[in-house]
Amino acid sequence: MKGGVKVGIINVTGYAGVELARLLRHHPEAELVAVTGRSAVGQKLGEVFPHLADMDLTVEAELTDSVDLAFSALPQVASAPVVAPLVRDGLRVVDISADFRLKDASEYEVWYKAAHPAPDLLEEAVYGLTELNRRELPSARLVANPGCFPTGALLALAPLAHHDLIQGDVIFDCKSGVSGAGRGLSLFTHYSEVNENVQAYGLEGHRHLPEIIQELRKVNPRLGARVTFVPHLVPMTRGILSTCYVWPKDGALGPADKAQARVRELYQEFFRGEPFVKVVPAPPQTKHTWGNNDCLLYPVFERRTGRLVVISCLDNLVKGAAGQAIQNMNLMFGLPETAGLDHLAVYP
Amino acid sequence: MKGGVKVGIINVTGYAGVELARLLRHHPEAELVAVTGRSAVGQKLGEVFPHLADMDLTVEAELTDSVDLAFSALPQVASAPVVAPLVRDGLRVVDISADFRLKDASEYEVWYKAAHPAPDLLEEAVYGLTELNRRELPSARLVANPGCFPTGALLALAPLAHHDLIQGDVIFDCKSGVSGAGRGLSLFTHYSEVNENVQAYGLEGHRHLPEIIQELRKVNPRLGARVTFVPHLVPMTRGILSTCYVWPKDGALGPADKAQARVRELYQEFFRGEPFVKVVPAPPQTKHTWGNNDCLLYPVFERRTGRLVVISCLDNLVKGAAGQAIQNMNLMFGLPETAGLDHLAVYP
Amino acid sequence: MKGGVKVGIINVTGYAGVELARLLRHHPEAELVAVTGRSAVGQKLGEVFPHLADMDLTVEAELTDSVDLAFSALPQVASAPVVAPLVRDGLRVVDISADFRLKDASEYEVWYKAAHPAPDLLEEAVYGLTELNRRELPSARLVANPGCFPTGALLALAPLAHHDLIQGDVIFDCKSGVSGAGRGLSLFTHYSEVNENVQAYGLEGHRHLPEIIQELRKVNPRLGARVTFVPHLVPMTRGILSTCYVWPKDGALGPADKAQARVRELYQEFFRGEPFVKVVPAPPQTKHTWGNNDCLLYPVFERRTGRLVVISCLDNLVKGAAGQAIQNMNLMFGLPETAGLDHLAVYP
Amino acid sequence: MKGGVKVGIINVTGYAGVELARLLRHHPEAELVAVTGRSAVGQKLGEVFPHLADMDLTVEAELTDSVDLAFSALPQVASAPVVAPLVRDGLRVVDISADFRLKDASEYEVWYKAAHPAPDLLEEAVYGLTELNRRELPSARLVANPGCFPTGALLALAPLAHHDLIQGDVIFDCKSGVSGAGRGLSLFTHYSEVNENVQAYGLEGHRHLPEIIQELRKVNPRLGARVTFVPHLVPMTRGILSTCYVWPKDGALGPADKAQARVRELYQEFFRGEPFVKVVPAPPQTKHTWGNNDCLLYPVFERRTGRLVVISCLDNLVKGAAGQAIQNMNLMFGLPETAGLDHLAVYP
Repeated sequence: MKGGVKVGIINVTGYAGVELARLLRHHPEAELVAVTGRSAVGQKLGEVFPHLADMDLTVEAELTDSVDLAFSALPQVASAPVVAPLVRDGLRVVDISADFRLKDASEYEVWYKAAHPAPDLLEEAVYGLTELNRRELPSARLVANPGCFPTGALLALAPLAHHDLIQGDVIFDCKSGVSGAGRGLSLFTHYSEVNENVQAYGLEGHRHLPEIIQELRKVNPRLGARVTFVPHLVPMTRGILSTCYVWPKDGALGPADKAQARVRELYQEFFRGEPFVKVVPAPPQTKHTWGNNDCLLYPVFERRTGRLVVISCLDNLVKGAAGQAIQNMNLMFGLPETAGLDHLAVYP
Repeated sequence: MKGGVKVGIINVTGYAGVELARLLRHHPEAELVAVTGRSAVGQKLGEVFPHLADMDLTVEAELTDSVDLAFSALPQVASAPVVAPLVRDGLRVVDISADFRLKDASEYEVWYKAAHPAPDLLEEAVYGLTELNRRELPSARLVANPGCFPTGALLALAPLAHHDLIQGDVIFDCKSGVSGAGRGLSLFTHYSEVNENVQAYGLEGHRHLPEIIQELRKVNPRLGARVTFVPHLVPMTRGILSTCYVWPKDGALGPADKAQARVRELYQEFFRGEPFVKVVPAPPQTKHTWGNNDCLLYPVFERRTGRLVVISCLDNLVKGAAGQAIQNMNLMFGLPETAGLDHLAVYP
Repeated sequence: MKGGVKVGIINVTGYAGVELARLLRHHPEAELVAVTGRSAVGQKLGEVFPHLADMDLTVEAELTDSVDLAFSALPQVASAPVVAPLVRDGLRVVDISADFRLKDASEYEVWYKAAHPAPDLLEEAVYGLTELNRRELPSARLVANPGCFPTGALLALAPLAHHDLIQGDVIFDCKSGVSGAGRGLSLFTHYSEVNENVQAYGLEGHRHLPEIIQELRKVNPRLGARVTFVPHLVPMTRGILSTCYVWPKDGALGPADKAQARVRELYQEFFRGEPFVKVVPAPPQTKHTWGNNDCLLYPVFERRTGRLVVISCLDNLVKGAAGQAIQNMNLMFGLPETAGLDHLAVYP
Repeated sequence: MKGGVKVGIINVTGYAGVELARLLRHHPEAELVAVTGRSAVGQKLGEVFPHLADMDLTVEAELTDSVDLAFSALPQVASAPVVAPLVRDGLRVVDISADFRLKDASEYEVWYKAAHPAPDLLEEAVYGLTELNRRELPSARLVANPGCFPTGALLALAPLAHHDLIQGDVIFDCKSGVSGAGRGLSLFTHYSEVNENVQAYGLEGHRHLPEIIQELRKVNPRLGARVTFVPHLVPMTRGILSTCYVWPKDGALGPADKAQARVRELYQEFFRGEPFVKVVPAPPQTKHTWGNNDCLLYPVFERRTGRLVVISCLDNLVKGAAGQAIQNMNLMFGLPETAGLDHLAVYP
């Protein structure tokens, strides 16, 4: 038995939950002691997920063991009613669902078509994009783990927003693998419909949009940009590549022939010392982050037009969900930030 | 023997060439009588491509039979030196390569790193985006068949450009299947590198960009938009989905609550009667065009921001290459435009 | 309006149904006049399946138009109760489900866990593997269209069984694309579960097994072979490749150095004149049949061991379902066998 | 610096080489200190493989650092001439190529079309299927790491061969992902050719066959089975699933109603205590081993026919190559067998 922080996973049966279990198994200072999941109560974890067969845990209806931290991998709307009483009872929680991300309960209601059951906790909840909110994590009781799209989008533009270099409006054109849509069944994720196919979706407004806007404005309250966000579904299991289009403010990057070097420096400076965010020297590919917690960034100054194109990529189930949740846990409990997350991507 | 127009394919061994052969086999009024291809001279077509086994043709070194039209499916730079003498000898040619698309030989040299061997033919060559240049085709001697990306990009914005409704700048974020990169071997198209992976490429400037700019300006010479074009490689064989971002001119689409209806009408009007361009009622997917000559368009007015997002999709080997080449041939020879192209997409 | 045979499709909303609609649209002598489908009653066909948007048909609850033939694309067990009354009322039916394939109602009950509702029709139903039962089709009232696996398996071994060359037992190791599992939702066909994965299934006995055994014995009643059939799910949408292992009877193929030539001759002879079954000169790939009605065969005599390995491949939705159904219809109505089925495979 | 065993990789630029580098980076008691690779001499490892960017190594022309062990990931035929002098100079080597697997130099010449340059080392070389040859590893100077297909095939039948339960002949029907064909370019591994496609290959005799036969006979010299081995290429990057067909000797598994339980016991007994070979309770999928060193086994007694079907699966780059190489290294140097290999599969 490993000792260290004792953790439980609420709803281990979705992809974020099962990825948490995988990552925790390799964690040197945390121990997974309990898992819940309504559809599989009473089954051994390895019966549901054969790759976890060597983890001796039984799926329970509710968290019963005494744990130091609970991860909620419940779906949106279902999570808050479960999480809120736990937090009030003094349990620290990282909620992977969207339920505590928006600060404004009325905005939550607009986007999630449900009244928020615990609006009093919204202010306190820390938006767990680790790199941007690191200082709030050690004392956090409730962490709202970011969505997979917002993680890539926000890290891509945070340096520019921070330095107030963005002029006009912003576009996020994002390409996601299918696991981001979860383990629930739908034609949208049916193999024969997805394979050999690309489509845009959420054109009427995707739920990750208000989260992106809220946090961009937190980085820079003066930012007035209108934000367009178009997600696309591509035929692969893991990975998000975001292509972000902005205009830099006039002259903000200096003379055109120096702007590319300038913007790279600015990104490198902003993320200096970050273990998981890397400003890379060549266009990144989602495969470079397959299975690990990295977010790769590649800013390009398009000299012909003066536009900036910033590309980010990450694994939606790791940095976009379970990995970042563990990164947040590490900071909440004073552990090394990279504990349990020190994997290379699996290539090819 | 079917009779009708006698055609030859120069370089049948690439994906555009072999797709031409497939489509011509079903053509009621054209007959494929000769094929060339350096790597396979002397082989039966069915030895190289088993799915064409019932076409009794032998790959030759050069077009020897008397043909009414030649399709060149040679690569860029290699095509012009072969095509130019044929045209001068009086043969009508549809060139699928990029060699006669740019009107300005010096721009060709910049993008293709080679002096153009027949600049005198550039002016005469008809840019074969059929829907935009239909009237020039019946008398054309030389048709420059458009690139796969420009076909989707130009059809997506042509109605707006034509009506001078575009304000400011334009972004084309394009997602392409791998067959667009051809049958030539490279790590870029190596299975284990492409599968489970998405990447942007051509960030330093893709060769299809000048072609897009040239033709957009032809639709509307007043258009001053700076154009950003970022292609992405997605793990599928066929299909291009282009997501195009523009600002409409202020008030151009009328009151915001009517703008969506207005823009749809405008697209429907512009393409009325077109057999292959369809303004669809729901977000299109590349799978909806798999194997056929359609280009599907879906314009969205984003009321929250005032932006227009126009999505187009097509099969890069059909409307993006061989299908459009045949569509052009049909008009050159006075055949029904849809002859040989009347296929439904293969789904799923 | 095309005229010719008027047909209806019962349950157009599954993959076999929608593929029937696609193929019939190109049929020169049959016309699709009615479609049913419980989940989509009242919708235009093009709303459910955008690639069929130019077919002006509305999904109905029941076949109401007067038709000459109905295709049933209902699932197993659900089909017989619908089909039986239609047949008794004098309508000719091709049933794509499994419901009329087994001659023995008690065996049906064993494999399908349901009493057969119309056992009196079993004897009359023609097993529609066209190449083997061609003579019975012109007068058939009810055709039981074969399963996708049996089609490939039976065509692979029919020549050997017919000539009584098989000694001992038989193995069919079959690899299928995912569309064979239908459009119904399940974890088994959930994209993220199937992609980057291969698995065997049906190890306890797959329902296509009794059908294979029944028809092999029909080809050769003396055949005593025990049959092992193991299907595998591979990450692609369409295609079945069957690898069939048999021992030829001692000396049946003559001297070892002539056996390969002998077995090829035997296959070519057996299928001479067949438009859709082709004995190919190199190992076939499922891609060579993508979207068309071919079944490709490749028999190999393994000189080192004396074993025969026969490979077959086909598109499970065409020759394995909708295409063969139309092939059967053609013979039922005295049309050319290839009418509406004269497509090349779509490659790549 | 980690200390421990100092190792070098010869030819890090192929998929086996780069996977070794990934796995060694996580190894607690071995340190990768040198890498070679002709095509990339002078480049940083992270320039060639971005996912290895945090490993500070430069690709060299030859191994120059002093190492305790060299892995050769050179291709067949190219490896032996490089490896032989190293071994003679006293360096311990694990050769991932096929060059030292066959004991008989004349058989090597038949299958590899090259005279063996160091036949004197063949006898000494230990065939590194760890579970079968564990005792020879601690003192081995030269380990011939098994092929990916033989690893799965041999582990699948070793218990039956060991107990002399196999009657008659044996079939291995194997399905492999594309990375097994390496990083070298060919149409066989070109994305658009492989995607949506399954094919059999090596029908004239695959090079892994003599290796399978040699080692099966080593497990049981009395085994007279003729072996048929048919590999298939399936559209995924990693994974091999082998479906193995054998007849058990009459009565060898006891009464038919107990045979399934008996064969499972026999497998469990045979592999008891093995950390990487697991007899699983449900049909395994290649995804259950994605990225880790497990080989999963599932024996099925088919009561209807009396046949045994044994399914094995593994990751061809890990247990089928780099992982097993490290497993062998661990035993050669007295390290815990699982050191550096304690990963869960990455799912989904």
